[in-house]
Amino acid sequence: MRPFAPVDLVPEEHVEAIHRTSLQILSEIGMDFLNEEARRMLAKAGARVDPDSARVRFDADFIEEKIATAPSEFTIYARNPERNIRMGGDAVAFTAVSSPPNVSDEAGGRRVGNRVDFQNLLRLGHTLNTVHMWGGYPVEPVDIHASVRHLDALFDMLTLSDRVIHAYSLGAQRNLDALEMIKIARQVDDATLETEPSVISVINASSPLRYDTPMLQGIIEFSSRNQVIVITPFTLAGAMAPVTVAGAMAQHNAEALAGIAFTQVVRPGAPVIYGGFTSNVDMQSGAPAFGTPEFMQTAMINGQLTRRYGIPYRSSGVNAANALDAQAAYESVFSLWAAVMGGAHMVLHAVGWMEGGLRASFEKMILDADLVAMVQRFMDPIDFTEGGLAMEAIRDVGPGGHFFGTPHTLERFRDAFYKPLLSDWRNYESWEEAGKPEAKEKMVELVDVFLASYEEPPIDPAVRAELEEFVERRRAEGGVETDF
Amino acid sequence: MRPFAPVDLVPEEHVEAIHRTSLQILSEIGMDFLNEEARRMLAKAGARVDPDSARVRFDADFIEEKIATAPSEFTIYARNPERNIRMGGDAVAFTAVSSPPNVSDEAGGRRVGNRVDFQNLLRLGHTLNTVHMWGGYPVEPVDIHASVRHLDALFDMLTLSDRVIHAYSLGAQRNLDALEMIKIARQVDDATLETEPSVISVINASSPLRYDTPMLQGIIEFSSRNQVIVITPFTLAGAMAPVTVAGAMAQHNAEALAGIAFTQVVRPGAPVIYGGFTSNVDMQSGAPAFGTPEFMQTAMINGQLTRRYGIPYRSSGVNAANALDAQAAYESVFSLWAAVMGGAHMVLHAVGWMEGGLRASFEKMILDADLVAMVQRFMDPIDFTEGGLAMEAIRDVGPGGHFFGTPHTLERFRDAFYKPLLSDWRNYESWEEAGKPEAKEKMVELVDVFLASYEEPPIDPAVRAELEEFVERRRAEGGVETDF
Repeated sequence: MRPFAPVDLVPEEHVEAIHRTSLQILSEIGMDFLNEEARRMLAKAGARVDPDSARVRFDADFIEEKIATAPSEFTIYARNPERNIRMGGDAVAFTAVSSPPNVSDEAGGRRVGNRVDFQNLLRLGHTLNTVHMWGGYPVEPVDIHASVRHLDALFDMLTLSDRVIHAYSLGAQRNLDALEMIKIARQVDDATLETEPSVISVINASSPLRYDTPMLQGIIEFSSRNQVIVITPFTLAGAMAPVTVAGAMAQHNAEALAGIAFTQVVRPGAPVIYGGFTSNVDMQSGAPAFGTPEFMQTAMINGQLTRRYGIPYRSSGVNAANALDAQAAYESVFSLWAAVMGGAHMVLHAVGWMEGGLRASFEKMILDADLVAMVQRFMDPIDFTEGGLAMEAIRDVGPGGHFFGTPHTLERFRDAFYKPLLSDWRNYESWEEAGKPEAKEKMVELVDVFLASYEEPPIDPAVRAELEEFVERRRAEGGVETDF
Repeated sequence: MRPFAPVDLVPEEHVEAIHRTSLQILSEIGMDFLNEEARRMLAKAGARVDPDSARVRFDADFIEEKIATAPSEFTIYARNPERNIRMGGDAVAFTAVSSPPNVSDEAGGRRVGNRVDFQNLLRLGHTLNTVHMWGGYPVEPVDIHASVRHLDALFDMLTLSDRVIHAYSLGAQRNLDALEMIKIARQVDDATLETEPSVISVINASSPLRYDTPMLQGIIEFSSRNQVIVITPFTLAGAMAPVTVAGAMAQHNAEALAGIAFTQVVRPGAPVIYGGFTSNVDMQSGAPAFGTPEFMQTAMINGQLTRRYGIPYRSSGVNAANALDAQAAYESVFSLWAAVMGGAHMVLHAVGWMEGGLRASFEKMILDADLVAMVQRFMDPIDFTEGGLAMEAIRDVGPGGHFFGTPHTLERFRDAFYKPLLSDWRNYESWEEAGKPEAKEKMVELVDVFLASYEEPPIDPAVRAELEEFVERRRAEGGVETDF
């Protein structure tokens, strides 16, 4: 829980300037919605749909009216009720890295995503208290055929862990399969699923100003069943968005508002999260950059926009580092800084992401788990009771004394302070004697320690069997057509 | 300039609880002031001085009345007027590492502080835009005899750089020498020096609840001449302060208030800065820790206290790392996070500190310069003009296009984004081909680049000669007695 009010980086009038420009973009330029059903629904709801193209334009009133029905708080249900996630208010949830094509660990090097690593990342994430929910596959298990990958991956996610799951919107059938599987895992019927959102799905705009068919189908299928959509335009300033922070945000906000409005066209009141994801590129090379000052600015201003709209806010814990070095750490902390102070309710990718999202790293999972845990501890309540204020202890010790070994200290020292996973606080001589270990060595060591401590979360054998049967049946049916 | 309001981590009532407990400590327990002149001045001003010991107790009214005369904003003067520092309000100034006994660079390893390294750290800091002022010697030049060290060190500081200087309060004569030297460097007389504070001096309490003679003499000499005192109790929770965050802060605040009150006893209205420096120890080993969650909490709550008192706030950029690794980065960013969001006006040690203050590092200067520059860029104003909001550019590009090479981009791309010193944003393949360099290699490289680019700031030869003469004369007189 965030104990402080989120920070307003820019004055109200600048938030309004972004909001106004976004509405102007949506009214004058509009967006391409590359799906006929979506356009039909939007036309019926009152949007201005061009009959000769995919272009849809939105009046300001339409947008304002639609986003007003989006709820400001809701619960997302996990198969383990203790792992339900409250979204909105002062709650902050962190997810593991999601969707990278590659994975690495120190021993095995960098490799293409595969099911073994996928499963081990699930196990590692599950053992880490800092992974509160899944925001996608911690690595893409590319060795599973695309027609059935979602079945095996969701099976693993639902059995190796017990936290809130994410399903990719990659066509209608996959979405329906995900819904069936979470119904089995939670042993709930359609009616309960509709009152208890149990799947999140991240929907990206194809910036600038376009939504593709699988994304729109995802909104249609998940929002109509009251599941959670995370609308996240990915706007890289200088590439797919203007080179100015304010301009990139105006475009981002237009895309987000149109997507959020569409979820409410599909079903007024459907839970939706505003995903902020504006960063910049290196203007010399075009390479995307993360955890930059500009990323921090946009992450905090996105928070201001979402508070204006009363919609929960998703940000990201990100970096563009190739190595487990200082860069990996500072870019990650800068992005956490902006997300947490900016009032994010969900910080995606916060544990394990590297290379601007192209790689999951086992060791980076450890580093980030430590960083996120420190941020959480920082936000924990402080003891302001008489014992916490320690007047008596200070009196007992008096000027010139010390607090080692006093009763006040002895009663509290075990849990007084955060115990870091990585920080090495030995003095130089002891550290030198130990062979001058750097933080990376500890990360490598702790991957094995945490994986060894993994315990599969309990599941009713009958439920597990039912999940297995579902996957087998769907596999026998050929899974889904792979036309992409 | 900080564009946002500082963050209140805890509610008002908890700030009051710390304040109230501090006043109770000062009234009931009191503090030892180990200097007779100070006690005499305090007794005369109305404090309750024990005739048989060094103990001084303070009524709450006394403290409240005294701290009320401390100014909330003031300017500190450098020999180069462009380098004057505004202290208070939304300004944030960063200083280099101060006072470590050791120094290191990659080629030469770790060694005891010496004048050559001292001078080179001054040069490096001077070339870095992120070192706004000096908070002390960037390393202790131990090879200069203690009797004349302050003369040579201040000479170097005043000639190799042109920024605000710090003088250590180590006995009356050293303080007077510092005042003479800054008068020469700025070519001002005593009267002007009194209206234009030109020296800062950090005064540490000997926690718990004690001020030593050199510290009290420093306050007497500098405050009486309207120079800037930075009252900084160094309270390590679990060692020299209670093991609880609230308790350590109550003691810290008591010590700080007593010190600040004494500056105002010496001279009502004298410029004083509230230094926050509460961290925790590793309860297993007793080793001090920095950039921890508890450090963040205290750094932010100190900000709340200083805003209550209307006194400028000094925090620190710190870490306990031995290596230039992820730990060095994340602990440093966590401390910057707390300082900047907590409303610090002066962030001491922010550039170059390692090992909990036991070592200055040339490479860490580069890392921290990058971190501080990112924080500053994050706080820079954002362009919200029509061009910044980019409506026309978004219209021109339209759905499905891209912004590379558009006029809007071409006009702005050069300065659009922060250009990092260290971050390597190449894709994995290019990075691998380059030999997988880590951030540290770039730090090593850039130390030489920045040192090579150093230019001695201009100084009137007559002024330089006058400084030299002063140092020579004082050296001939034997400097100061070294009785400690």
